[in-house]
Formats: sequence, C-alpha cells, structure tokens
Amino acid sequence: MGNSNNNKYNFNPKLNKSMISKQKLFALRLNHRPHRDLRISTHTALVARAFGMDGIFFSGVPDKKLCERVNRVTENFGGDFLIKTGCEWKKVIKYWLSQEGEIIHLTMYGLPLLKVIEKIRNSPKDKLIVVGGPKVPREIYSLATYNVSITNQPHSEIAALAVFLNGYYEGQELNFEFKAAKMKIIPSKDGKKFAT
Amino acid sequence: MGNSNNNKYNFNPKLNKSMISKQKLFALRLNHRPHRDLRISTHTALVARAFGMDGIFFSGVPDKKLCERVNRVTENFGGDFLIKTGCEWKKVIKYWLSQEGEIIHLTMYGLPLLKVIEKIRNSPKDKLIVVGGPKVPREIYSLATYNVSITNQPHSEIAALAVFLNGYYEGQELNFEFKAAKMKIIPSKDGKKFAT
Repeated sequence: MGNSNNNKYNFNPKLNKSMISKQKLFALRLNHRPHRDLRISTHTALVARAFGMDGIFFSGVPDKKLCERVNRVTENFGGDFLIKTGCEWKKVIKYWLSQEGEIIHLTMYGLPLLKVIEKIRNSPKDKLIVVGGPKVPREIYSLATYNVSITNQPHSEIAALAVFLNGYYEGQELNFEFKAAKMKIIPSKDGKKFAT
Repeated sequence: MGNSNNNKYNFNPKLNKSMISKQKLFALRLNHRPHRDLRISTHTALVARAFGMDGIFFSGVPDKKLCERVNRVTENFGGDFLIKTGCEWKKVIKYWLSQEGEIIHLTMYGLPLLKVIEKIRNSPKDKLIVVGGPKVPREIYSLATYNVSITNQPHSEIAALAVFLNGYYEGQELNFEFKAAKMKIIPSKDGKKFAT
C-alpha cells in the first residue's frame, strides 16, 4: 500500500492507446434488447470507448438508436470506435478464434483478475472481451480462453469491463488522448471547463 | 509497465475492508427516479457494496424496490451494507461536512484520479463519494472537497465509482471477503461453482 505502486501513476496526458497496446481490443455484449437495455448498453459502449477499446459488438436485436448515441460521442470527443448491433454471438466468437485472437469472458464465476491479468497483458493476441447480459449461454464458458472474475460478488458488467481495462492498461488508459476531438474537457478543481 | 506494480497484486483472499481502510465510505447518487433508473441505480449500489463501501444514499424519489433488490444481495452474499433512498442531497452533504468528513465528487470535469488519489487515500477523513445523475446541481462542485475525473470522456457513473474504489484500495478490494455470506462463489476456470 502507500507508495507501493507509484509507477502506475505515471501521469502522461499525451498517451494514446496504440502506444500502450498493439493488440486489438473489442468487446462483445450479449443479448441486447432495445429500449429495455438502452441505457445499460450505452454505458457499456461508452466505457469500452473511454477506456481504450477499438469497438464493441452487441448480439441480440439491432438497435439504431444505440449506435447513433455512441457514434455522436465519438464524433464529438474523437478517436476511432466501432459499434455494431444485431450480431450473432457465436459467429463473432468463432471468427475471433479463427483469427488467432483470444476470448476473455468476464463473469463473477471466473478466476480472479489479479491471478490472470499479467498473463493476459503479456499475450500478443488480439482480445475479445465478452460481457454478459442475463442468461449467458453455457457454451461461452468453454469457448472462452479465460473466464475472469472482477470480485466474486454480483455487481455490474459496466464496472467489470472498466476495472478489467484499468488492470490491463495499469491505469494508463486514464490518460489516453483521442485524436480529432471536436470537444475536449479541461480538468478543473471546481467547475466545468471545455475547449472546442 | 510489465512487472512494475506487482505489489498491487498481492493476492490475499482473507482480506476484509476494515483491514485496509479505517475510514467510513459512503456513496451518494443524485436524483434517482424509480422505474427509469432502477437498473442503473441497482448497478451503482451493487458496485458500492462489492467494492467495499459501507452504504449508499440516493436523493430523489424513495424506491422500495431498489432497496429490496440490494438488500437481498447483501442477505445472500454477506457483509453490512446500508441503502437509503429519498434523501435530500444537501442535508446529506452538510451533515457529512459537519462530521468532519470529506466529499469526493466524481465528474468528467474534475482533476485526474491519478493526481489526487494518493492524497485522498492518505487522508484520515470519512469519505462521501458523490456520483451524478443527469443535471448535477452547480453547488455540488463548490461543496465538494475534491472534484475527481475518471478520464475526461463521457462514460458511466457506475464505471467511475468502480475505478475510483479500485484506485483507492489499490486493487485489494478485489479480494475482500464478506462475513456471514449464505452464498459464496468459488472462482473457477470454466464454470459456475457455488458453496452455500
């Protein structure tokens, strides 16, 4: 504790994702239901973007509104971020495995993050991070290269994804810059400051 | 990077929150609207619980269903966790300050986590972590002891709370044990394992 991991807090506001990780990072969120899941899925996609992933796939029902919301943030705040809804989860996973990528399934039943994150970080393979909706198909557990738990307590796939990425990038994602941003927030002690 | 912060990954499954932090940690989620916010607020409360906070207050409309959902998780998975809805945000904040506690407001406009977390961690004061709903009252920014950003990108208050707590506890919250749990999940490489 105390000063033990100051290395993590190597504050550098000019980082971008490709300086830290050469691997592609995509998320797959299972079984999106428009309307009912719109807010939860928007949070999940925005976390994927803000914490340095390349894109997110949603299985379940196609949802134009979800894509529009997320694309509007990308247009304003910059960077490249792909969002696709209405995907077939098994096809996405099989394709990913056929391209020599690996599958990381975040689940409260998996192995603790702290036991596997070093190995995942050091692997040169592209990563597909799968986060559940309700009723995760049993097959996902065996197709996954890693089943990883972010605590063994029930909480939130949004939090799980953020904490996984925070561990993967060792906190450096907090300093990522997004290219071609129309809007930029200037960190401030006590107010709202924008640069446009 | 690489092996730089192995100290963080000091895997010890017998930790509990009071061994790491003597300060009280509560969350305040602004402006809860039953039905519309039920899922988002449930995720927020469960993250607060799973990542080692003592409880959560919600301002806005009282919501029995939200309390029941969260209390059911606490009954099954153990530990002590307080949830209160229908609070007046200003009263909660003023009371907290009158008790010599400090207010940490998570906002995309605040100072970067990595710049302030060490100071917050080393402060002996009890902490109230405020996370917004839509339309945060301007006054919160000046009442807050710290306005802290978890990236300056738009994403999710659920993710912000989890990543803040992960930084505060330096990852040790991932190993917290909850006392008197009726259900316990056994981490597993490829399946679902329970102990009851």
